[in-house]
Parts: sequence; C-alpha cells; structure tokens
Amino acid sequence: MHELIGKDSIKMRLSDRVSSMQFSPIRGFNKLAAKEEAKGKKIYHLNIGQPDIETPKAFIETVRAYDDKVLSYSESNGIPQLLDAIIGYYKLYDVNLTRDNIIITNGGSEALKLVFATVLNPGDEIMVPEPYYTNYISFGCETVAVINPVPTTAEDGYAWAVKEKLEAALTPDTKAICCNNPNNPTGRVLSREDMKVVCEFAKEHNLWIISDEVYREFVFDGEEITTFGMMEEYADRIILVDSVSKRYSACGARIGAVISKNEELMDGVLKLAQGRLCVPTLEQYGAAALFRLGPDYLNEARREYESRRDAAYEEISNIPNVICEKPGGSFYLMAKLPIDDAEDFLRFLITEFEDEGESVMFAPAEGFYKTPNKGKNEIRIAYVLNSEKMRRSAKLIRLGIEAYREKKGL
Amino acid sequence: MHELIGKDSIKMRLSDRVSSMQFSPIRGFNKLAAKEEAKGKKIYHLNIGQPDIETPKAFIETVRAYDDKVLSYSESNGIPQLLDAIIGYYKLYDVNLTRDNIIITNGGSEALKLVFATVLNPGDEIMVPEPYYTNYISFGCETVAVINPVPTTAEDGYAWAVKEKLEAALTPDTKAICCNNPNNPTGRVLSREDMKVVCEFAKEHNLWIISDEVYREFVFDGEEITTFGMMEEYADRIILVDSVSKRYSACGARIGAVISKNEELMDGVLKLAQGRLCVPTLEQYGAAALFRLGPDYLNEARREYESRRDAAYEEISNIPNVICEKPGGSFYLMAKLPIDDAEDFLRFLITEFEDEGESVMFAPAEGFYKTPNKGKNEIRIAYVLNSEKMRRSAKLIRLGIEAYREKKGL
Repeated sequence: MHELIGKDSIKMRLSDRVSSMQFSPIRGFNKLAAKEEAKGKKIYHLNIGQPDIETPKAFIETVRAYDDKVLSYSESNGIPQLLDAIIGYYKLYDVNLTRDNIIITNGGSEALKLVFATVLNPGDEIMVPEPYYTNYISFGCETVAVINPVPTTAEDGYAWAVKEKLEAALTPDTKAICCNNPNNPTGRVLSREDMKVVCEFAKEHNLWIISDEVYREFVFDGEEITTFGMMEEYADRIILVDSVSKRYSACGARIGAVISKNEELMDGVLKLAQGRLCVPTLEQYGAAALFRLGPDYLNEARREYESRRDAAYEEISNIPNVICEKPGGSFYLMAKLPIDDAEDFLRFLITEFEDEGESVMFAPAEGFYKTPNKGKNEIRIAYVLNSEKMRRSAKLIRLGIEAYREKKGL
Repeated sequence: MHELIGKDSIKMRLSDRVSSMQFSPIRGFNKLAAKEEAKGKKIYHLNIGQPDIETPKAFIETVRAYDDKVLSYSESNGIPQLLDAIIGYYKLYDVNLTRDNIIITNGGSEALKLVFATVLNPGDEIMVPEPYYTNYISFGCETVAVINPVPTTAEDGYAWAVKEKLEAALTPDTKAICCNNPNNPTGRVLSREDMKVVCEFAKEHNLWIISDEVYREFVFDGEEITTFGMMEEYADRIILVDSVSKRYSACGARIGAVISKNEELMDGVLKLAQGRLCVPTLEQYGAAALFRLGPDYLNEARREYESRRDAAYEEISNIPNVICEKPGGSFYLMAKLPIDDAEDFLRFLITEFEDEGESVMFAPAEGFYKTPNKGKNEIRIAYVLNSEKMRRSAKLIRLGIEAYREKKGL
C-alpha cells in the first residue's frame, strides 16, 4: 500500500522556515515516555508546564451551563463577558483597560504568534533574554524573523534588564524586545526599576516591548508582582501577552490575550484575528469565570508554588556538583548537571533507569539557547507537582545522575 | 488620559504583511449592524457562514460529561479519540487514514495557516480559483506568499479545473494550488474528472494540492460527493483541510484538521503545531462525538441546505436585472446586482433602509477578487437560514435595490 503513495512525485519541498525549525524539546520525548509508561513504569513529568493543581470548578460549571442551541462563531476579538472579566482582573494591579485594549487568542501561544506577525517583517530582529522559552524561536521562525539573544548567567541571577547588556545585543534591525516576566525558564522576576530600564532603552531605540506575563502571580519571597501594564508612560510601545493556562491551571482551555493601548497595533492584530475567525465560544465563557475568581485564589496558588519551589530547590541544589540558582518566580528552575549531554541523560532516564519502578523527565535546556555550545548539560525543571512528588522527583534525578555517571565512566 | 499614552514615542511601525491586509469584508460591517440592532432593527445575517441549524446535542453532552479535575494540555496532534473518529468518518468515502495522517487544528482556518506556513516561502506563489474565500488572501499575506488568481466567470459556471486556465495562471514561482471543494463563494463542485485534471497538472508542474473541503457533504442535485482524498495515486502532494464548523453546524467549536499522507509534510505541520502546544481539550471530545454521527445526519443536512439553496436561488434570480448562477454545492451563492457599489449598498441597507423594521446583510464580493475592478457590484449570500427566512431576506434585497436605485437616481 505504502509504495503506491507518492509514486507520481519527485520529492515535495517544505518551506525554509519549517525546515529550519526543531521539534519541541519539551514535548519531543513524550512518545518515548508513553511507550515506557504503557509497560508500567511511572514517570514524573517535570518536562512540561502542566500543573497538577485542580482547575477551579467555576470553569467547567460555566461551560456545562451553556445552552444555546447553535454553537456559533463569536466576534474575532472575543466575547464581551470575557473582555469585561479581564478588565476587572487587571484592576487588581491598577491597570485600567477598555474592551478595545484586549483581543482574545487561542492561548498565550497564539497571542505571541499574532504579535510577532503584526510587528515583524522577514529579517527583522527581536531581542530575547537567553535562556528563553523555546517557542519564541518557533514563533520567530514562523514569522521569518531573527531572535537576538541577550545572554544571562546563573551567576548573576539571570539578570538582563541592564542597559549595557541590552546595548550589546542591539542591532540596526532590532524592532522589539520580547521578555517573559516572571521568566520561563530562569524564574527571574523584574522589579519596577528593571522595567524602567527596559522602557527607557526601548524608547531610546524605538522598540516594541512584548511582555509575556502568563506567570504573573507566581512571584515569591514577598517580592512585588509587576507587569509592564504599570508603565503607563510607555503604553504606546507595550504589548502584553496573557493566558489562563498557568494562573488558573487551565492549560487545556487555550485562552489567552493580546493586550495593548496602541490602537494601530490592535487594529493590526485584529486583522489577523479576523482571518482565523474566532476563539472557541465555550472556553471563553469558562475563562471569564476564572478571571472573576479574585485575589484569594491567586494568593493561594502563589503560596502553593512557593512551597513547591522551596522543596524542588532544596533537593536539587543538594545534589553533588549540581549548580542551581534559586528562582524568584514562575514555576521553573534551571540546573547545570555533572553530565555532558542532558538529552542523552534524559533518554537514559526514560528507557534504562528506574528506582522502584519510577523515573523522571525534564526539558533538556539546549533548545532554550541560541548561543552555540550553551545549555548542553543544563535542564529545566517545572515544579508543577506537589512538594512530596517534587522531592521524590529530585531524588530520582540524583539517583539517575549516579547511575548515568557510572554507566558512562564519568 | 488618552493624551498621556504614547507621549514618549515616535510612531511605532507595523509589519508590511499586516499593513497590506484588509479588515474582513465578511465581518467588517458587524459593528455597524450591532448598533442598528441595538436600536431594534431586525437584520438577517447572510454575510457570514453561520448556519442556524442546531448543533447536534452529542457535542455539548460529551463536553458536559468531561470530569477530569485538571483541564490539561493534550498532545499537539490531537486526542486519539478524535483522530479515530475522523478515521471512521473518512471510511464513508473509502479514504483510509491512520492517526499519523491527521493533525487537529483550531478550525479549518488554523489548518490553512499551518499548511501555508509549511509549504510556502516568502514570495512563493499559490494558485487559487477566483473568486475565492477571502481569508486565503489573509493567510497568504501572513505567510508573505502571493496569491495567483485563476479567474472564473458565472457564464461558465465558475469552472476552473481546466488545463488551459491553470496553465495561464502558472508562474515559475507557483508552489501550490489551493482550492475549495465545494466552493465558497461560487458553489462550484469538482467531479472526479475535474480532480484528475487538477492532479495531472500538479504532477506535471510539481505542485502541492491544498484542498479545503469543509463543505464536503453540501453537494446538490444528486451529484457525487468528491474529495481529493480519493486521488490515492497523487497522495504525496495532496493536503486536505477539514472542519466541523459547517458540516455539523459547530462553528464556535473551532475544530479542524490537516490531513495528508505525505509524512514529511506532516512532520513540518507538527513542528508548527507543537509551537502553539495544542487545541482545546473539551472541544476535541465534543468534536469526536460529531464525527461519529454517521451518514444519516449528513444526508439530512444536505437536504436542508438544498431546499435553502432552491428558495434563495429562486428568489434572488427573479429580482430584475440580477445575474446569478445556480450553485451546485456549499451554502453560498454569488449575485451581480444592478447597482454600482455593493459596499455602499450594504451600508445603505444597514443604516437607512428598512421594511417593517427589518433589513438584511450580505458579504460585498470585491474582497473575493484580486483582479482589479472585479466584484464591485457583486455580493455573496450565505443561505444559512431556513427557506422561509431566505425568501424574506431575498425580498428585502429586492426592496433594498429598488430604494437604493431610487435614492441614487439609477
């Protein structure tokens, strides 16, 4: 049968943008893991930002109550109920929005894709603190734009909002700064002073600021929650990307938003949004219920992630020869392991290693770097499981390192 | 307040792709209509392909039954239940698929966007029969690719699967043929012979065939339902785009699919799909229930649209000086009106005209053409309302034409 297929054709070619893209380093090992899980191995998934926290019941209850007879298209910018719920939520941070400042998207991912397509021409450059959320590279490829890394290091706490560092990364083709606050994968959180540095730099060089703030409330140790939405003076160049995925543990809802007070920008995003017609209707009603939950829910979520962070950091940083900076926010930590190749180590953990029938997965960090030879022995851990499971997972990493080093004669 | 915003910046620039795009000619007048509707005017919406047919209850019942505590990401290619339901549905047409041949998308729209991004480089050209679904232009702009129209006319029944017509539109940069079968907006349906012509042409010039088949079952007058999935000999260059929106009257679910037996293509699409993580989980369960409905549902839907087509065509073609070809499929018809500017006429219908407190909307057809000076006095009507409402809507168009011509002194 298969020999029949394509017998007519010379090899069909794909676009350069897709040929140059990698498969997701976060999801790439899922198939391999599924095979082992089917055989009975229990694997702790720290590779993907999928929390085990229950989605607030308000979501599914609102969805279940939907009873229009026809499941219709909604407006391309989103249903008014959701827009208004988001406006209400932002008042928590004294950010005043109108409906016209918001366009609902299929998750933060689509928000980023629409924003990149709206502000970047092929060949334009976009500055991104490195290591970065790996899909920024994918969205850059898709737009045929170029990612310009702003290198950071564990030693200086992954700081990047520093004039000299930004200047070193700037080129004549730089059109935007894209950042993630709190940061995935480093956990770095920007202070108001940091944001001021970024805004002044953007103003000086006439750059857009694209701030992906999907981990907004996950800021620990009593530090202030910050959003570029607070930088009203620079509002015309600021674009926020938001999502319910992490904040409300609703990753499968795929509801996000582009938020900006720049009318022209929002018109551009709306043109693209009209092309894909709309975001699912039911999910928008559910998401509106989430945004109405209020600060108690958010505070409890923050406390839970802080205790997970504490457990994960304590255990991981105690593994011999592991270098790990304590993250101040989001729900990730980066760790440098005493091995040479994190991908090979991960494959070993999935297919060869086990302790009492259990193993663990993380995201190899090489895909979070553009600078050559960086990240090969680094990993990103998502502390999305409860503290007990995080401790167990860290122990599995420790035992795995020992077994791997022995096997490799390291 | 507003004067404060952006006081720091020189004008921020948008990308050329977005600047060159138009707002949706289908959705563009919605705001204006909403204003009049708020004042009490009843407007029949024939501008958008939003059927009034009830969404099968299986959808919402399946969604309501979902009771996982955490609404998680699904795999980027879709949940197995939905993939298997689609495999089952395609057996109706003797098309044999595996899970690897299918990637679930956010509606047919995202399917088209992913496919364009996977096969087209900036500057590549794509042949599209004209008039076309207006968003093909949007997706082309987004990919920075160029749409090459294959002009068709009402006089020859909007036929385009003709070697000479295809050859006339071919350029050295043509990489793909993108068609819609049955066609939006013309209603043209391809026969097996037509598909053979297209396949042979694509083979000769090594082109991809992207076939958007979201109206598949809406084929009238006893003609055969066709899909490029039947052209097994050419499978390696064929890419199907599918969706639940029209077939199951579930536009707000936003569930579609890319379907192809070309493994390399599917790997490329998967890379892009991984970037946006996944499609909403709940909607996928609901859509799986729809694909399992079977042929009885589909036959009934076809009969209903055929009677609407009959009502709409009879009334519209009887309006004096209106030229209108009887459509063989989909749920649209094109009509040339005895006016000079369909956009201006539409604005008149919404804001000035009424008959017993009612008016009507359609899509002005200029946006469905790339060839200059075409479509200005043409409109697309979606026969998505029941026959009685279609007759009333057609009457409103007739009365509207009379009133408009009188006002304009035509």
